[in-house]
Parts: sequence; C-alpha cells; structure tokens
Amino acid sequence: MIVRPRPGLLKLFFVMRGSIVPRIMPQIIGFGIYAAVVVGVIKALGLDFGNYGLAPFGLLGVTLSLYLGFRNNAAYDRWWEARKLWGQLVYDMRNLSRAALALVPADSGQARPLLMEALAFCHLLRGQLRNVDATAEARTFIGAEADTLSSVVNKPDAMVRRMGRRIGALKTSGAIEVMDFRILDERLASLAALEAGCERIAGTPLPFAYTLLLQRSAYIFCLLLPFGLAFSAGWATPLFTALIAYSFFGLDALSEELEDPFGTQANDLALDALCRVCEISVFEALGEAAPKMTAPKRYYYS
Amino acid sequence: MIVRPRPGLLKLFFVMRGSIVPRIMPQIIGFGIYAAVVVGVIKALGLDFGNYGLAPFGLLGVTLSLYLGFRNNAAYDRWWEARKLWGQLVYDMRNLSRAALALVPADSGQARPLLMEALAFCHLLRGQLRNVDATAEARTFIGAEADTLSSVVNKPDAMVRRMGRRIGALKTSGAIEVMDFRILDERLASLAALEAGCERIAGTPLPFAYTLLLQRSAYIFCLLLPFGLAFSAGWATPLFTALIAYSFFGLDALSEELEDPFGTQANDLALDALCRVCEISVFEALGEAAPKMTAPKRYYYS
Amino acid sequence: MIVRPRPGLLKLFFVMRGSIVPRIMPQIIGFGIYAAVVVGVIKALGLDFGNYGLAPFGLLGVTLSLYLGFRNNAAYDRWWEARKLWGQLVYDMRNLSRAALALVPADSGQARPLLMEALAFCHLLRGQLRNVDATAEARTFIGAEADTLSSVVNKPDAMVRRMGRRIGALKTSGAIEVMDFRILDERLASLAALEAGCERIAGTPLPFAYTLLLQRSAYIFCLLLPFGLAFSAGWATPLFTALIAYSFFGLDALSEELEDPFGTQANDLALDALCRVCEISVFEALGEAAPKMTAPKRYYYS
Amino acid sequence: MIVRPRPGLLKLFFVMRGSIVPRIMPQIIGFGIYAAVVVGVIKALGLDFGNYGLAPFGLLGVTLSLYLGFRNNAAYDRWWEARKLWGQLVYDMRNLSRAALALVPADSGQARPLLMEALAFCHLLRGQLRNVDATAEARTFIGAEADTLSSVVNKPDAMVRRMGRRIGALKTSGAIEVMDFRILDERLASLAALEAGCERIAGTPLPFAYTLLLQRSAYIFCLLLPFGLAFSAGWATPLFTALIAYSFFGLDALSEELEDPFGTQANDLALDALCRVCEISVFEALGEAAPKMTAPKRYYYS
Amino acid sequence: MIVRPRPGLLKLFFVMRGSIVPRIMPQIIGFGIYAAVVVGVIKALGLDFGNYGLAPFGLLGVTLSLYLGFRNNAAYDRWWEARKLWGQLVYDMRNLSRAALALVPADSGQARPLLMEALAFCHLLRGQLRNVDATAEARTFIGAEADTLSSVVNKPDAMVRRMGRRIGALKTSGAIEVMDFRILDERLASLAALEAGCERIAGTPLPFAYTLLLQRSAYIFCLLLPFGLAFSAGWATPLFTALIAYSFFGLDALSEELEDPFGTQANDLALDALCRVCEISVFEALGEAAPKMTAPKRYYYS
Repeated sequence: MIVRPRPGLLKLFFVMRGSIVPRIMPQIIGFGIYAAVVVGVIKALGLDFGNYGLAPFGLLGVTLSLYLGFRNNAAYDRWWEARKLWGQLVYDMRNLSRAALALVPADSGQARPLLMEALAFCHLLRGQLRNVDATAEARTFIGAEADTLSSVVNKPDAMVRRMGRRIGALKTSGAIEVMDFRILDERLASLAALEAGCERIAGTPLPFAYTLLLQRSAYIFCLLLPFGLAFSAGWATPLFTALIAYSFFGLDALSEELEDPFGTQANDLALDALCRVCEISVFEALGEAAPKMTAPKRYYYS
Repeated sequence: MIVRPRPGLLKLFFVMRGSIVPRIMPQIIGFGIYAAVVVGVIKALGLDFGNYGLAPFGLLGVTLSLYLGFRNNAAYDRWWEARKLWGQLVYDMRNLSRAALALVPADSGQARPLLMEALAFCHLLRGQLRNVDATAEARTFIGAEADTLSSVVNKPDAMVRRMGRRIGALKTSGAIEVMDFRILDERLASLAALEAGCERIAGTPLPFAYTLLLQRSAYIFCLLLPFGLAFSAGWATPLFTALIAYSFFGLDALSEELEDPFGTQANDLALDALCRVCEISVFEALGEAAPKMTAPKRYYYS
Repeated sequence: MIVRPRPGLLKLFFVMRGSIVPRIMPQIIGFGIYAAVVVGVIKALGLDFGNYGLAPFGLLGVTLSLYLGFRNNAAYDRWWEARKLWGQLVYDMRNLSRAALALVPADSGQARPLLMEALAFCHLLRGQLRNVDATAEARTFIGAEADTLSSVVNKPDAMVRRMGRRIGALKTSGAIEVMDFRILDERLASLAALEAGCERIAGTPLPFAYTLLLQRSAYIFCLLLPFGLAFSAGWATPLFTALIAYSFFGLDALSEELEDPFGTQANDLALDALCRVCEISVFEALGEAAPKMTAPKRYYYS
Repeated sequence: MIVRPRPGLLKLFFVMRGSIVPRIMPQIIGFGIYAAVVVGVIKALGLDFGNYGLAPFGLLGVTLSLYLGFRNNAAYDRWWEARKLWGQLVYDMRNLSRAALALVPADSGQARPLLMEALAFCHLLRGQLRNVDATAEARTFIGAEADTLSSVVNKPDAMVRRMGRRIGALKTSGAIEVMDFRILDERLASLAALEAGCERIAGTPLPFAYTLLLQRSAYIFCLLLPFGLAFSAGWATPLFTALIAYSFFGLDALSEELEDPFGTQANDLALDALCRVCEISVFEALGEAAPKMTAPKRYYYS
Repeated sequence: MIVRPRPGLLKLFFVMRGSIVPRIMPQIIGFGIYAAVVVGVIKALGLDFGNYGLAPFGLLGVTLSLYLGFRNNAAYDRWWEARKLWGQLVYDMRNLSRAALALVPADSGQARPLLMEALAFCHLLRGQLRNVDATAEARTFIGAEADTLSSVVNKPDAMVRRMGRRIGALKTSGAIEVMDFRILDERLASLAALEAGCERIAGTPLPFAYTLLLQRSAYIFCLLLPFGLAFSAGWATPLFTALIAYSFFGLDALSEELEDPFGTQANDLALDALCRVCEISVFEALGEAAPKMTAPKRYYYS
C-alpha cells in the first residue's frame, strides 16, 4: 500500500511508484506505433478510410466504459471489503485481549498463551492469503507448536480450533463460567468469519468471462481506432490512440491489481503492517513492551 | 468456476473455456452476414438510406446500455451474494465443529454424528440447488438414514431439523446446558438462514420483463444499425455490426449465466469444491484423515 | 412472478405474458402516428425545421436516462428487498418450527397451536399487503379465532401479539425457562421486523415528484423528437420515435410495476407460493402431510 | 408525503401538488426569456456565434449529469434511510409492547406507563427533528411530566433515560429478572440507536461544496447554452434552454427536498402519520381503543 | 463542516467558505491563460489544427468521467461511513450512560468514573484521528491519569482497556452480575469497533494509482483540449477550457477533501461538535450541568 502526499504538478508525471503505467507501457507504446504505421500507410497509398467516421466508436465506447466501470467497481469493492475484514481483525484482537484479561483468571495462566495463539493466527492467515510460509512468525508466538501445523491444510483454522480447545478446557475445569465462555467464543467465531471472508475473496476471482469480454473489446477497439481517426486527426492519431489505450488499459490493470487485494503489489493491502498493529495492541494490553510500527519503504507498506 | 492466469495477447483471442463467445456466435455471425446483405442490396439498388444518420442510434444506445448495465449489476450481485452465502456455510461448518467438540460431552458420542449430518446438509443443499440427486454423497456421511429423506420435499431443511432434534435431546437429557444449546442452535439457525437465502436466489429470477425489454431492444437496434452505418462505413458495416452485437449479446449472455449462480456453466460457482472445503474443515477438526482438495479440470472447478 | 425458459428469437417478439408492451402500447402507437403526422405536415408545407438538429436531444437524453436509471434502480431495490423479507419469513418459520418443537414441552400441547398461528400470520400479512381478505385462509389454521380479528386494524401484528401471549404464558407457568422464552421471542421479534419492513415498502412509494419529473420529461422529449428527426431521417422518423418511446416508457412502466412488489401483476412477487412454502416447512416439521407446491398458470406464480 | 394514483396524460402536466415545478419556475421562465433575448440580439446584430457549436456542452453535460446523479442518489439514500429508521421505530414500539406486557408483572402497574413514555418519545423525536414543540402531544401520554423536560437539551434522549430508570427500578426491586431486563433494555438501545441515526441525517447535510459545484455549473451551463444553440436551433432556442433548465434544476430542487427528509415539504416523510401508527400499535396491544389513522389532505400525509 | 442555508443566485458565485474554488484557482486560471495562448498562436501562425475535431475528446471524456464518478463515490462513502461511526459513538455513549447508571450500584461510586473515561475516549479518538494532542481535554475528565497515557501508542484503545478493567473489577468483586458485565462489555466492544473503523478510514487512503490515473488523464485532457476547440470555438476556447478544468478539478479536489474525513478542512466532519454532543448526553444523564452546544464560526463547525 502506498501512503504519500499528493505529488505536485511537475512530479505528477514522473511518479512511477504505485503507478500502473510501467505495467501497461507495452500497450501504450505498441498502439502508438501501430497507429503511426496505419496513418503512414493510409497517407502513402492515398487510401480514404476516413468516411466511416467515429460514430460507431462512440457506440462501442459506451459499452466498453460500461465494462470498465463495472469491473473497477467490483474490484474496488473486493479490495475495500478485504480491508474491512482486516480492520475487523484488529478490532477482534483488541476485544479478545480485553475479554481474556478480564475473564480468564490470572492464576490459570491461560490468558497470555491464548493471545499468543491469536497473534499466530494473524500471521498464519497472512501467510495463507499471500501463499508464503509464516511458520517463522508463528514460532515467535507459540514456539515449537508452530511446527506441528505443517501437515494441516488450513493453518489459521487449526489455530482457531486450538484456541477453542483452550477455552473449552477452561470451561470444563470450571475456571470460567458458561457466559464467559460465550463471550470468548464469540470472538473466536468472529475470527473464523473473517478468515472465511478472506478466503472467499482470495479464492473466487471475478468471473473469468469479464476479463475476456473487456480485454477483447478493448484490443479490437484500439486496433480499429486509427482507421477511424486517421482522416480527421492525421498525425495526431498516434497520440490519441495511445491516450485512449492508456485510459482503457490503465483502469483495467489497476482493477486486476485490486481484484486480488492480498498480493504484494504496490496497491495491495499492507498485511504486514496490519499484523504489526495487532501485535502492538496485544502487547500493550498485556502491559509488555510493544514492537515498533513498521516503517514504509519509499512510501510503500508491505 | 474458472481460475486461471490471465492469458497473453496472442492467446487472448483463442481462449474458449469460460468465454461466452461460443454461446453468442449465432448472433455475431448472423448480424455480420445480415449487415453484408443490407450493404450489398443498398449498393446494388443505389438506395440512399445514409442521410438518417447515426444520431438516433446514439439515443437508443444510451438506454440500451442502461438496461445492459443494470442487468449485469443485478446478476453479478446475485452471483456474489450466492458466493457469500456459501462462504458463510464454510464458516458455519467450522464454528459448528469447534462448538460441537467443545460443548457436546465426549462420552455422549453425539458430536461426530452431528457433524456428519452437517456435511450431509452441505451436499443435500448443493443437490437441491443444482437439481441433482445428492443422496449418494449424503449416504457417505449418514448412512442409510439418507434414504429416509426420499419422500421429503425439502431435504436440507429436514437435515437441519434432524440436527435440531439431536441437540434438543442432548438438552433434555441434561448432557448440555441451556446456554450450550443456544450456541449450537445459533449455528443451526445460521445454516437455515443461508439455505433460505440460496433458495431465494435460485427460485426468484430477475423479473422476466427485463429480459424481454433488453433482448427486444438489442435485436431491433442491431437490425436497424446497418441502414444507419451503410452510407458512412460502407463495407466496414458488417464488421461494426458484428462487433456491436458482440458487445451487447456478450454481456447479455454473461449476465444470464451469472443470474443463476448455482448451475454448472463455466462461470457458475464451484459448489463441489466448496463442499469439499467443508469436509476438510470438519475432518481436520475431528482429527481424522481429511480428503484432498478437488483438482480443476482445465482450469474449471465444478 | 413469471418463471420460464428464455424464449427463442422467433418467439421473443410475440411473448406477451410478463411483457410490459401491452401496457405501453398506447404510447408506442400514439407517438408513431404523431411522428408520421409531423413528418407529413413538414413535407407538405415544405417547412424546414431540420436545422436545429439532434444535439439538444442528446443533452436532454442524458438527464432523462439519469432519471430512468435512478428510478429503475430504486424500484428494483424495493422489489428485491421485499423478496428478501419474504425469504426471511420462510427462514423464520423454519426456525420457529425447530425451536418450538425442541423447546416447548410436548405435554403442554402448545407447539402446534403456536405454529398454526404463525401460518395464519403469513396469510394475514399477505392479505394486508395485497389488500385482500385472508380471513378464510387464517381460519384454516386457527379456526374461529380468525373471526375475532375483524375489528383489529393491523391483523398480522395482532397475530404476533397472540403468539407472544402464548409463550409468555408458558414462561409464567414454568413450562419453559427464561432462555427458552428468549429464543422463541427472538423469532417473534424477527416476524415483527419483517412485517414492519413490508409495511414500509407497501406504504411509502417513491417520492411522487420523481414520477412527475420523469414522465413530463419523457413526454416532452418524444413530442419534440419528430421535429428534430424529420429532416435527417425522413419517413423513418415514426419508426425511431416509436422505438425511443418504447425504450423510455417500457422501463418506466416496469419500474412502476416493481415499485409496489406486493401486487398481483406479472412481475410482482409470488406471495401465494411463498405462503405455501411456509406451510410445507411447518407441516413437514410437525411430521404431518404437507400440501403440494402451487403450480404456475402459464409460467405465472401468483 | 404524497400518496396518489399516477395521473393520466392530460392531468400529468397540471398536477402541482408534490411537483417541484412551482419552486423552479423562476429558473425555467428566467432562462427562457434570457435565451429569447440572446437569440434576438444575435439575429438583430447579425452576429455569428454559431460556429463554436454544441460539442463543449456535451463534455460539460457529462460532468454536470455526474454531479446531478451523485447528489440525487445521495439525497435519496438519506431519505430512504430516514424512512427505514422510522420503520424501525414502528417495529420497536410493537416489540416493546409485546415484551412489556409479557415480562413486566401486571400487578406492578409499570407496563402501561412505560409504553406511554415510549409514545411520548415518538412525538418528542418528531418534534426535535422538525424543530417544533411536541410538548402538547407528550403531555397526552405522560401528563405533567412532559413539562419537566423544558430545560433538557435532548428531550427524546431524556425520555429513553426515564424508561431506563423505570426498568432499572423493576430489576432492582426484583419484579423482573436480569434476562427480562436485558430484553427490555435491547429495545431501549434500539430506540436510542434510531434516534442517533435520525440526528445524524438531520444534523449533517451533504457537504456544502457539492451544492456550490452543482449550482454554479448548472447556472453557467444554462447561461452559455443559448449562444451554442442560437445558430442551429434559432427561435426554438428558448424552448430548449427552458427544458434543459427544467431537467437540471428540477432534479436539483428535488434532491434538496429529499436531502432533509424530516421537513414538512410535499415529498418529506409523513412523521405525523407514523407517530399515529405507533399509537395504534400500542393501544391495540394494551387492548384499549386505538385512535384512527390520519387521513391525507389532498393526497398529502404530514 | 459547513451548515448554512442555500445561498441566493447573486450570492452563489461569491461564496468562498466551503467552496473548493480557492484550491483549484491555479488550474482554472492556468488553463484559461494556456488556452488563450494556444488560440493566439494558432491564429497568428494561421495553423489549422481544427480538423481533428472534438470526437476523440468525447471518447476520453467518457473514461475520465468514469474515473471522476468512481472516485467521488468512493470518497463520499468514506466520509459518510466516518459520520456513521461517529453517530454510533453518540449512541454508544448514551447507551453506556443508561446502562452504567442502571447496572452499576450507586454505592460503588464507579458509574461516574466509567463515564468520564468514556468521554476521555471520545477526545483521545478525535486527537488520534486529527493528529492533535487531546491530553488537555482528557485531563478535564480523568485528571492526572491522562498524563500516564503519554507512552502509549494507541491512546483511545488504552482508555477502552482501562474501562474494561474497571467493569472487570466490578464483576470480580461481585458488585455486578455476569449478565450486567456482558451488557456493559458489549458497549465497550462497540466503542472498540468504531475506533477500528475510524482507524481503517484514516489509515487506508484510496489506492494511490487512482489519483495518478485521474490527475494525469485530466491534465492531458485539458492540455490538448484547446487544440480541439480552437477552430470551432475561436476566442471562446479559453472560457470553455477553464470551465471544463473547473468541473474536473473541482470534483477532484472535493473528493480529495472528503477522502480523509477527519481533517479540519471546510467539508470535513465536525469532530469537536460531536464530542460536545457526547458530553451533553453524559452530563444530562448524570443529572449534572451540561456544557453548551458549540457555536459555528461563520457557518463552520470544527
């Protein structure tokens, strides 16, 4: 995630960090050159394609912008929902801390292990969503137990079950009452719910047909456009073709990036930083030294 | 459901798996040929229809894109809501597993049968939504009891009732307290809620008048378009007519596919895979050998 | 509600069931004839109105489509929210059945009367929303008690109160515990909530000014359009005017139909069928013979 | 709130009740006259402004319709959310009635005063939202106690606190159990939540900059339009200018009306009628004579 | 936040308070002068750029308005969600007051300190969101305890924990029952949830790539526009260019302001006033003298 002040006018066109321009440069330059060739050939051969005008492009442009707008909205909604789920994680961790410290008897010594398991859950969830191995981070909190998860398919789910067994044992032993159990269990249920929500977003891309429909339409549009523009715009045709390619493929590429919000691209969510926020909340609640907030690298939070 | 990396430019135009092009090929080709005939006749007879221009098509195009955009949004919302309901199923199964193992006394031997009934519920729900017989899968989990459901109208609902009777008996016998009952009952209520949500989506299509309004407008639009384009676009008319037919009927066909998200078409939801996710969660919670995740067939999850 | 397979191309233009064409035929034909007269007079008198062109219509068309799109979205949202509320009714009836049978002691004999009152609630709610007398259906379930409701303003609300008194008496008599009461009371609260939601939709139409704004704009637009089209489109003017009237008034009429989703028009909700779904759920839960699902009449569920 | 059947074609243009035309008549007539003057001057002086055409207006029109559409959606959402909150009020009153009669012991004599305070809450909330004095109505239900509220800033909030004290006293005296208290308290919390929601809508207008941006753009657009239209549309220019002013300022004025849904303008919410619905529900629940539903004055519910 | 009556026509163009015009004046004037220079040069050199027309700008304008519309909707949603969260704060404070006074025994003397901590929470949250030091305000309510927070990273979160410890101690000492604890704890959980929501909005800006995409497109559009307009609009070109720059950058600047709703700009939320509303509610509930509502400074609430 990029957090930075809005660049000034001069800088605006040279910022590359977080921009999608580098990813769509092939299309911008490619269509620019292609349009120049089309104009050159038309002028050289003295062809006259000009009279079919731009009107059909207007009709196509409306549907194309319909596709682009829909896909962008859907992708952004996924991104923002994912952020909400991780915001809920922060909230659940704080509530769990408060509840554990208030309800679990201090002499049982169970509150701290429970919260450490919760922190391991955060990292294991991040690991699962990003397809990276978070066992090392989990080990920081739950020690060698983290290694027993290697054979488990769904590691964060296993963590929630482990926490469930812990509070179940507290209830069975009479250390906590049934209503205490219920309050703690609601927090675990909330963790399970947000995990399922994250898995849904990570595992279910937008219907593939949208990608095909949008990309095919955009390519055909840009391939035909120079023939429509050549007569009226002359040598400005490559410029306009490149600009329109930029506005189409730019939004397309950004939508693709946001569609899977758990990646590590520039505009994806800062899961590392959010895990750190959870750690700070838990350790402050325990009255222990909290780690420092992660610092961005050139405006970027991983 | 199709899950695959975005195809490169060369492949983009030849991907058929998940594309809606095969379904709308008749319209694309049909309108292309029709437009060619119109242009041919106009040129042969020296008719001059050109002067009524494209402006009225612009007006019609705005309303048509309004229809298309609305229908697409509504269909996608149904698809995504259906996915959320099945994500909730995953979450409910995990919560039910955790709750059953923590609350139902081990010596009652009731936790495992309860969870097996829950898995049968998943498959019976899938069967009902897809209009297929899921008795075989249900039998895997609940044995011959699955066959007693044959006379029941709503099989998944019957399964929830059976689970309700089981936890009711546990409460009556004093094996679980009233608060335990409440926690378990909330899970069953959640299963019943998501079943009713799925039935709502499966049983209530978008108002039929939208289909008529949209399709009629699109057909009339494409039938008249060649007369508007012939004069200015000449022999490029068939190309543009086919393209515009593609952009209209492509989104229309995709919307139709997403409108009923429980089917087995390429862009429908992967209910089989989601049932498997539930199985894995339950068997891992029970500490038993979990089945493997289903593998896609040519990028397609059924 | 119409449920039918999508008609083929040939049938598409002749389907009348569920279509809004019959309702807007006067506008389509009227504006067609009107446009023909305008063109005829212009040609006969050799007037030249052609030069004010179509551009102002483009500007007006954008705002008009803004109105149409907004109103359609708002109407559809009402329709879909109404369907969700009735889906919640189905879910509440099933949950109430399960809870009543699990919590109300069999020897009290109160579970069945409670569920019969719930079914009477469904029919009385349908009756109130459709402005029909549902006393006959209510009598099927609660006998002569149904007739005591004649003086009550809000019959379904009275039914919920009656159920509330029944479970209150069970609690007072000690037949059920306070937590049992709470679980049952939550179901009644849910019924009351969905009733209030339905009343809100039924009793609060979209602000009347939208109807005026939209209809006035559409009429003036179509009245002026032939003067704008006559010069460029000639005798095709009546065809385009009728088409544009179709696309405007078609969506307008459909929005009006969906705005009040509880009626009995072709695209309204199938309240009769949904009441039957509730009956089936309750009787199956009671282990009694369930009535058959209602059959559609020419694809139409009432 | 206006509730009336849709007017026929002839009546459509003469309905003033609920229409926003009277409020924007100055703009419509003003811009019509202005446009006529512009055309007259251009023709008299033989100026030729015609060649800068309408294209820039098309570009401006797209952004202007973006503003209009956004503001209308936001205003309508506020209006509909406000209606939902008052629908929740109806639902809460019914639930509170049912709960109070079931849970509060009859011999305590506290159920009726509690419900009377709830009715006073409805009227005091209405009074606060409409900036009118509702002490007279409150006095009907709670007698002289209503006058003790005169020094309180937030009267409905004080009412909820009074109800809270009443049920708190019941709990302290042992008349109700803690779970009974919780059920009743949840209703009070719901009343407090909807009050806060109403205050939010009433106290936070849409950001003022939107109004400025929209109105300035609309005025400048309409001031320049006649210069763009004069050449091509001639003496039809005043007609089109007035029409476009109507479509812009009409939606603007309606949005402004809906933005504050608690007023007493034609399209505002019928708070008087909704308070009456609450009264009917409570008195029917008490088994007392319920007041009659309010009758509309010329289709208008206050 | 600006709250003021809608200005009349004459005043409309001179209102600067709350307007975004001052912030985008450089762009408006800059592009006006730039366009004048372009027209001047074209006329002086007798260049003929006119024939590439405005059609490509129409295509670009559609995508640009797509970006603008999306960003504005997303920014407004953030602003409104932030307002809802602070509305929930008001509601939670009232509920907490009612619950504390009803449930916490008067002789424990704990209700008032709890509510004072809640008020400190409000101010500390405001301080954190606005990056200002709110220790002084917190000291008003909790005295020297406020200074012990200086080393804490997340001050409002620490406040909630402190309240949690207070009610935990009440439960441990037997002063309140477990259900009382649950009711109070639900309020604290709600405070924690809204804090996490505010942090999410404050800490996660819209993806940076949107800003780049939108601003770059808008600048390039306005830089090219005069070449497209010069031929047809002549010396009106600077006027139209400035107008279009106004409509683009005006919405862009407003979106940027709303995107971070917790600032102190004219259209940001009135957190000071909302904190005061909370104070009034708490002190009225305690029966103490409530502070006065804050008065706006020239229509502006800070």
